[in-house]
Amino acid sequence: MSSSPSPQAALATRIGDAVRIARGADALAPSITNTVSIEFVANAQLAVGGSAAMVYLPDEGETMAAVGGAVYLNMGTLFPVYAETLPRTVRALQAHGTPWVLDPVAIGIGALRTELLAAFKEFRPSIIRGNASEVIALAALWGLTAQTGQGGRGVDAVDGVDTARDAAVALSRWTGGAVAVSGETDLVTDGRTVVRLSGGSPLMTRVTGSGCSLGGVAAVYAASVPAFDAALAATAIYNVAGERAGARADAPASFRTAFLDELYRLSPDEVAAVKMSCEECGA
Amino acid sequence: MSSSPSPQAALATRIGDAVRIARGADALAPSITNTVSIEFVANAQLAVGGSAAMVYLPDEGETMAAVGGAVYLNMGTLFPVYAETLPRTVRALQAHGTPWVLDPVAIGIGALRTELLAAFKEFRPSIIRGNASEVIALAALWGLTAQTGQGGRGVDAVDGVDTARDAAVALSRWTGGAVAVSGETDLVTDGRTVVRLSGGSPLMTRVTGSGCSLGGVAAVYAASVPAFDAALAATAIYNVAGERAGARADAPASFRTAFLDELYRLSPDEVAAVKMSCEECGA
Amino acid sequence: MSSSPSPQAALATRIGDAVRIARGADALAPSITNTVSIEFVANAQLAVGGSAAMVYLPDEGETMAAVGGAVYLNMGTLFPVYAETLPRTVRALQAHGTPWVLDPVAIGIGALRTELLAAFKEFRPSIIRGNASEVIALAALWGLTAQTGQGGRGVDAVDGVDTARDAAVALSRWTGGAVAVSGETDLVTDGRTVVRLSGGSPLMTRVTGSGCSLGGVAAVYAASVPAFDAALAATAIYNVAGERAGARADAPASFRTAFLDELYRLSPDEVAAVKMSCEECGA
Repeated sequence: MSSSPSPQAALATRIGDAVRIARGADALAPSITNTVSIEFVANAQLAVGGSAAMVYLPDEGETMAAVGGAVYLNMGTLFPVYAETLPRTVRALQAHGTPWVLDPVAIGIGALRTELLAAFKEFRPSIIRGNASEVIALAALWGLTAQTGQGGRGVDAVDGVDTARDAAVALSRWTGGAVAVSGETDLVTDGRTVVRLSGGSPLMTRVTGSGCSLGGVAAVYAASVPAFDAALAATAIYNVAGERAGARADAPASFRTAFLDELYRLSPDEVAAVKMSCEECGA
Repeated sequence: MSSSPSPQAALATRIGDAVRIARGADALAPSITNTVSIEFVANAQLAVGGSAAMVYLPDEGETMAAVGGAVYLNMGTLFPVYAETLPRTVRALQAHGTPWVLDPVAIGIGALRTELLAAFKEFRPSIIRGNASEVIALAALWGLTAQTGQGGRGVDAVDGVDTARDAAVALSRWTGGAVAVSGETDLVTDGRTVVRLSGGSPLMTRVTGSGCSLGGVAAVYAASVPAFDAALAATAIYNVAGERAGARADAPASFRTAFLDELYRLSPDEVAAVKMSCEECGA
Repeated sequence: MSSSPSPQAALATRIGDAVRIARGADALAPSITNTVSIEFVANAQLAVGGSAAMVYLPDEGETMAAVGGAVYLNMGTLFPVYAETLPRTVRALQAHGTPWVLDPVAIGIGALRTELLAAFKEFRPSIIRGNASEVIALAALWGLTAQTGQGGRGVDAVDGVDTARDAAVALSRWTGGAVAVSGETDLVTDGRTVVRLSGGSPLMTRVTGSGCSLGGVAAVYAASVPAFDAALAATAIYNVAGERAGARADAPASFRTAFLDELYRLSPDEVAAVKMSCEECGA
C-alpha cells in the first residue's frame, strides 16, 4: 500500500521540478529593473538556466510582455519614461496573460513610485517579492490591511519577516498569486499555505541586489511553473546557494562570486532539500 | 631566399600587433551602451589597455566622437534621449572620421531601435558586431540581402554563425569595414576575406555582456589599427581568454573573473596563436 | 607627565574612529551616480558598514537629502532629468544641512555638466573628490584659481596630484569642507592641513569605479564624522585595501574582488596605520 507524500515533501518535489525545468528551458524573462543590480539580475537569471533582456521604453515593455515567458518589474531606480512604460507594460502583461513579478523597492519614496504602485493593484502581479517593510507598505497602499510598518528607509527593511505575515497573506489573497518576503528567515505564501525557509548567509545583506536578483530568478521559474512554485523555488535556491557560498567565502565580493556560481551548480535535489516549515501546508 | 609568410601567419601577426599596440596606448574608446553590461564593457576595455568613458547626452556624444580614438555604440537599453544622441553622435563620427563599432543588440524590438538602425546605414560603421541573428536582421533591414533569419528573441541568437556568412559579407562590402559574428565559432570578414576563429567556453553564454564587451574591446583596438584587424584581434582575444578562463573555472561568476583577468594577462603572441582558418585569405 | 599625541597620531586616531563608527552605524548614504560604477559604489558602501540607495528623479533626490546621513553626487553619466534633479537635490541638502560629496567626473564635457557644476559653487559641498585634472578644472570653473590643467580626457587625469595642491586648498577654503585628490599618491586637505597618503595598487587604474566608490565611501563616513575626517578615512581605507588586494591578486578582476573584500575586513587600526605625511598638520 503506497502512502501519499507528506505535504512538505510535496512542496520539496515542486521546488525541485521548478529548478529542473528551468535548467533546460532557457526561458526568456525580461526585466524593467534598477540600474544598481541590473547586471546581477541578468547573471542570476542566466545562472539558473534562463535568458535575460532589459528594456526601458514603452513599446519595448509591451513587446517583452508579449514574447517573455514571464516579466520582472523592479521599482528601484525610476526614470521619467517609466510613467508611460510601466502602465503600458502591465496592461500588455494582462492582455497576454504573461506572469510577472513585482518588486516594490523603495515604496513610499517619490510621487511617481507611489502612483505606479497604486495603479498596479488592479493588475494583480503573479508574484510580489520584497522585504517585510515593503510588503507591509504595499498591502497598506492597496488598502488590504490597516497595519503600517515602521516605514522603509531607502531600500532596507526595518520590520521583521513575521510582522509581514498578515500583509503577505492579504496581498496573495488579493492577487491570487504568491508573495515572497525576504529576511533572516524568508516567508512565501499563496494566501493559504505559509512556508518559512531558512539558510542563506548574513553576507547577503552586504551584497547589493541579493533581493532584486531573487525576483529575476522567480520570473525565470514563473515562465514555466505556477507562481507559488516559482516563488518557493527562487527563495529556496537563494537560501541553499547563500548557505553554501557563506561556507566558502568570508567577505562580500568573494561571497557574491561564490553565490552566483552556486546558483549555476546546485542540482534540483539540493535545492529541494532547503530547510523549510509550513502552516496550512496541505490546504 | 626569403619566403613571404602564409596569409594566415600574416593575419596572426596583425592580431598580435593590435594587442601589443593597445597595451601601451591607453586609447580612449568612449561608449554609448546598455546599462546591463556597461561596467563589464569598461573593465574589459581597461583590461586590454584602453580607456573608457560612457555618456548619454547629445552634446556629450558629439564630444566623444571628436576626442575618442574610436567609439562603441550598443543599442541594448535605449533611453528616450537616444533619439537625439545617437543621430548627432554618428554625424559627428563621420565629420571627424572617427572609427566606430555598432552593436545592433535586440534589433527588431521597438520602433526607436529600428528607426535608428535604419538611419545608420548611410554612416557605414567601421565594425559591426553581433550574433548571427542580429547580423542577418541588420543586413535585411538595410536591404542588402533577401535573407531573413529566424528572428531575435530578446538578445539571444537563434541562428548559427554560418547562416550569417552572406549577410556579414554583404554588410562589410557596404560599409567598407569589418563585421564580426559571435557564436560557437566566430566569423570575421572585411567583405572578401572570411576568418573563422574558435576557442572560448560554453560559460560565455552564461555571463551577460560577453558580446557587448567584445564590441568595446574592438573599439579600443580600432583606435589604433584598421577595422578588420581590430575586429579580428578582439575576437581572437575573446576566444583565447575564454578558453583559458574555462580551464580555470567551472561556473559563471568565477569564470567571469578569470576571463577579465586573462584579457589583462595575455601576451600578444598568445592571442595571435588563436585557432583560426580563413577563406580568401590572401585576397 | 602625559604628552599629547603627535599631530599625525591624532589624525590616525580620527581615521580609525571614522572606520569604527561606520562599521556599526549602517548609515544611509544615498547616491545620484553614474551607471558604470553604480553597483561598485553600492557594494563598497555596504562593505564599510553603510547603506546605499540610488535615485534619479527630482523629488526622490529631495527625499534622499532629507533622510540620508550624507549624499553622494557623481557627475559621470548625466541623464536629461538631472537638469532638474541635481539643483533640487543640492537645495534640499542645504536646507537640511545634510553633508554631501561632489565628484565632478568628466568636468568640461557637455553643457549640462558645466552648468550644473558652476551652480554648485554656492552650495559648498562638504567633500569634493576627484583626480588632479578634475580638481584643477573645478577650481578654475569656480574662479578660485587662475591655473588651468592640461584638461580632462574623458575620465582620466592627465595632471599629477601635486599639481592640484593649490586648487584643492582653494576649493576647501571656499567650501569650508574637505577636498580629496586621487592619484599615485593621494592628497586630502581641509584648506589648512594637507595630508598625503600612499599605498594602493597600480591595478586600481585598471578597475572602473575605483574613484567613484571612494566618493561613495566618503559619504558613508561623512554621515557620522566631520568632512575632513571622512575624506581622510575614505582615502586611507582605499590605500590600505588596495595595497592588500594588490598583494593577493595580479590581474584586475580578481583584484577588484579582493579589494572589496578588504574594505569589509580591515579593522579600524589597520586603516589608521596607512602611510601618510602632513603639512600644517597641527594647524
